[in-house]
Amino acid sequence: MDIKSKSIKELENICNDIREEILRVVSKNGGHLSSTLGATEIIVAMHKVFDSKKDPFIFDVSHQAYAHKLLTNRWKEFDTLREFGGLCGYTKPCESEHDYFVAGHSSTSISLGVGAAKGIAIKGEEDSRIPVVMIGDGSMTAGMVYEALNELGDRKYPMIIILNDNEMSIAKPIGALSRMLSSAMAGSFYQKFKKHTENFVDNFGDGAHYLAKKMEESLKLITPGIMFEEMGINYIGPVDGHNLKQLISIFQKAKKLGQPVIIHAQTIKGKGYDIAEGKEEKWHGVGPFDLNDGSSSKKSSEKSATQIYTESLLHLAKENEKIVGATAAMPSGTGLSELLEAYPNRFWDVAIAEQHAVTSMSALAKEGFKPFCTIYSTFLQRGYDQVIHDTCLMDLPVVFALDRAGIVGEDGETHQGVFDISFLRAIPNMTLFAPRDEKSFHQAMSFASKYEHPCSLRYPRGSFIKTHLIESNEFKLGISQLLLSNDSDILFIGYGNGVGRAYETSILLKQDVSILDLRFVKPLDKEMLKNMSKKHKKWFIFSDSSKMGGVASAILEFLAQEKITGIEVESFEYEDKFITHGNTKLVEESLRILPSQLALRVQELL
Amino acid sequence: MDIKSKSIKELENICNDIREEILRVVSKNGGHLSSTLGATEIIVAMHKVFDSKKDPFIFDVSHQAYAHKLLTNRWKEFDTLREFGGLCGYTKPCESEHDYFVAGHSSTSISLGVGAAKGIAIKGEEDSRIPVVMIGDGSMTAGMVYEALNELGDRKYPMIIILNDNEMSIAKPIGALSRMLSSAMAGSFYQKFKKHTENFVDNFGDGAHYLAKKMEESLKLITPGIMFEEMGINYIGPVDGHNLKQLISIFQKAKKLGQPVIIHAQTIKGKGYDIAEGKEEKWHGVGPFDLNDGSSSKKSSEKSATQIYTESLLHLAKENEKIVGATAAMPSGTGLSELLEAYPNRFWDVAIAEQHAVTSMSALAKEGFKPFCTIYSTFLQRGYDQVIHDTCLMDLPVVFALDRAGIVGEDGETHQGVFDISFLRAIPNMTLFAPRDEKSFHQAMSFASKYEHPCSLRYPRGSFIKTHLIESNEFKLGISQLLLSNDSDILFIGYGNGVGRAYETSILLKQDVSILDLRFVKPLDKEMLKNMSKKHKKWFIFSDSSKMGGVASAILEFLAQEKITGIEVESFEYEDKFITHGNTKLVEESLRILPSQLALRVQELL
Repeated sequence: MDIKSKSIKELENICNDIREEILRVVSKNGGHLSSTLGATEIIVAMHKVFDSKKDPFIFDVSHQAYAHKLLTNRWKEFDTLREFGGLCGYTKPCESEHDYFVAGHSSTSISLGVGAAKGIAIKGEEDSRIPVVMIGDGSMTAGMVYEALNELGDRKYPMIIILNDNEMSIAKPIGALSRMLSSAMAGSFYQKFKKHTENFVDNFGDGAHYLAKKMEESLKLITPGIMFEEMGINYIGPVDGHNLKQLISIFQKAKKLGQPVIIHAQTIKGKGYDIAEGKEEKWHGVGPFDLNDGSSSKKSSEKSATQIYTESLLHLAKENEKIVGATAAMPSGTGLSELLEAYPNRFWDVAIAEQHAVTSMSALAKEGFKPFCTIYSTFLQRGYDQVIHDTCLMDLPVVFALDRAGIVGEDGETHQGVFDISFLRAIPNMTLFAPRDEKSFHQAMSFASKYEHPCSLRYPRGSFIKTHLIESNEFKLGISQLLLSNDSDILFIGYGNGVGRAYETSILLKQDVSILDLRFVKPLDKEMLKNMSKKHKKWFIFSDSSKMGGVASAILEFLAQEKITGIEVESFEYEDKFITHGNTKLVEESLRILPSQLALRVQELL
Repeated sequence: MDIKSKSIKELENICNDIREEILRVVSKNGGHLSSTLGATEIIVAMHKVFDSKKDPFIFDVSHQAYAHKLLTNRWKEFDTLREFGGLCGYTKPCESEHDYFVAGHSSTSISLGVGAAKGIAIKGEEDSRIPVVMIGDGSMTAGMVYEALNELGDRKYPMIIILNDNEMSIAKPIGALSRMLSSAMAGSFYQKFKKHTENFVDNFGDGAHYLAKKMEESLKLITPGIMFEEMGINYIGPVDGHNLKQLISIFQKAKKLGQPVIIHAQTIKGKGYDIAEGKEEKWHGVGPFDLNDGSSSKKSSEKSATQIYTESLLHLAKENEKIVGATAAMPSGTGLSELLEAYPNRFWDVAIAEQHAVTSMSALAKEGFKPFCTIYSTFLQRGYDQVIHDTCLMDLPVVFALDRAGIVGEDGETHQGVFDISFLRAIPNMTLFAPRDEKSFHQAMSFASKYEHPCSLRYPRGSFIKTHLIESNEFKLGISQLLLSNDSDILFIGYGNGVGRAYETSILLKQDVSILDLRFVKPLDKEMLKNMSKKHKKWFIFSDSSKMGGVASAILEFLAQEKITGIEVESFEYEDKFITHGNTKLVEESLRILPSQLALRVQELL
């Protein structure tokens, strides 16, 4: 849509249309709502003043970029948002030339802007191109923002950073920075003082004028922008992020500055949808809902793994006061909100700050506590060095509870929880295990709560695949559970949700199989695997995780080490490709890992 | 040493003794010098005021903590600093109860402090214990510092943070923060203004008094501490970090505050050793040297891998102006300093900020450039999520040049470059390869410079193991080089420096062996491996990297996938344990991977 020539009035109408379309589609498909609605005017103003074909438009996390998608030739396809084969819920260059970068993890935007600015500088394109970065206040807590600002403030590349401040983060505002940005007070303080000074100065002579000027200079700094100004980055704000005219005028000025500038825009989350307006976490990311009353349209009857985690941890925390825990800005997503409420002095939301979450929990372990560091599998990638250097090297009993392990559905490739086994398994002192259902989850948690070394357990988004197998028994270090045993040559080895997948596959198969719940991928149950190698020669590995360096890989290493030959090992883990977004079943189908497909694949291999 | 009862004069003498001992031992053993010498008074004052038996003493990076070691019952053993079996160059709890935490990677200290403070709060020990954190200005650039400050400023746990500001970082000061901390100016600005105000106020009445007071409040903020104060953390400084009396008095006051406080101490790097005093990077980490003239005592005649990297990159950068690059505060260690000098607009030191390094280089790749992101293997762990999310998901042609891959010697377990293959291999779109000697390094670099996808090459600290084998030929994607072929059943597969290890082992063996330089661990040379599987049944894998998920693991996955059975694969990669510090040869001996030991191990297995 060409909006360059549109009047303010027309642009306001476009904003209304955009909101309507977003509400229509998100209420149908689910998606990120509050931040998108709040950012509509900012994005329209961006497109009015800048050119997304040449200026790098960089959206942090990019779940707030729906309006940008609508404005760049994707109105018709918008109906397919987050659907398998449809538009991605995040920016994606292969979808449009107007999408500069992929972004699903937060706080990368300013780094990307600095990189783009360097490229622009080398090519001598500063007069015709400028990076335009949009970042929410919630994303400002992650460390890499400061790493980027530190270089930017020093080298001073021309760049526009629009800070979309809806005082939201995902959960409630956390941390010093958030308070600093609560500019109402700071703003009025400055305004009041300016007035005071002017009156004062009128009554006195030159000395007072000089003094007043200096004071104004200094007081100006006592705005939310002081920190940025101190870092060498211009600050404008706070401005009304819903006032198109003002936004456009400021963007135009900022564009001419030839320096980095942060424009602090205050917006209302959920703007334009009464039911969501001003609400916190609830309306951040939503499933399909009824537009009229905001009620959720489909309720799952199955208990989710996250719910089981919460119940289990509540139970353990009640019994053992040494249990503490942290979430990195995902209290509701990880189910930790109930713990934060029940034990406000033992559970913390540390904001989007996975590195700090891991390291501070490690110190708590050193102090004799038992921390449950609860992070999505994909986000633990942010704290990888800390897991190695601060937890495992110290051999501290931190539990990493990895939610969203496996395919996450509509969020897609940036969020898939597929690498955790591969990157954690190589770390000395680390123990890895996984529950397969509700009962085993409680048992796994009980094990974790007593275990005196670093450990990590993974569980899927949504609910476990159901099985009708013998009941899970107590978790013991490195001990698997044989669920089904017979004389067939075929052994199915499942890990976590892979056990259910193995079971479902087995009932579709014509042959008999034995089924082993591996439980621990590190350390392996060597005794059991040795026995199995004598009985069964064809092993099939089921785990919702990456194949490279994953569960089958661990088993192959073991067999090689023990010089056990003649076993054929086939892995049904994920192939070496990024996995797209969409309904989980459809995504799994495309990967040929639905039980019906797996049954065929097994048959072909026999 | 009990220093609680000592007078200032006596403490000054102790400082002299400490410096003498550090100089004596570091000139003999090598080690970190400048920062340690500069921090002597701070550490003595810490021990005078606080109690390292109960107060968590947390040293960031901890290479500046030598004085702390000397003060806590390790004077006698200090002679063994960084030697195999001797004292570690970093703090290490298993060495002394006075060492609270391991630290070798920077910027973890404030997070650890927050975790410790939480533990202290829960236990109700605030009256008797307080975390005492010491952090250098160079460490302040890494993002996790801000993640921790953000929570600390909000929750306000009592904590002492001593900012040891020697304007050093490791290389020259980089970034906005560093400038902000150059407090001389800011300090005098404030002082001058205060004076100005006082004079002014004396001439006017009450209104002026009021105004002046307000102004003073505001101007106070315009010190280096403004940023911290804004975050809700008290700031004291700048203070003279070599003035014991002042330090002790300030520490005593800070201890009583019951709130978080940053004490900004200015120190002189290399203080007390004329030759090193005030010098930058050169005297940060040193090998053995002559105390009298500062000359290095042993010079290696072999060209280091880092030197080859520099030569190669200089050559390529001259030919191809699209080549750019970054180091994260290791210009000299990574050999990038020559590039920074020759091409200041195309190569950047981004400070200790690996996350930002990876992501900003990814944006440069998007802009059509060819970035060489040059980072030690161990430090890339800090940018892991960024490699996945910003480089590989976008399939951008960033080259990760991983220096110090393998055992790093005296720096020890925090710095070993052992996990890179395991954590990078699982990432889709990533290609992994390694040179084995000088010639192949140039060829590998030439390949990297033309390759259009993410890739990573690894090379050792120091020089490659020498071989007398056929010459390396051009690098082609996924193509290995067969170096020695015969009819024996034995195949040695080497990767990177592992080729030299395989070669050395082979000449000590009584049997003939074939030797394959694998070159690419991803993608593997499937054709060659298939052929080899027909000829040789006993494969031995040589690579200076972790066994779990490593080179042998990749080969086992391949064999399983291809249903090739009957091959015995034995890996001589590193076992699943953290690897200690010391002379590399001695460390390797303890791991039984010296060629003479490997030859025996092979023999036993035949």
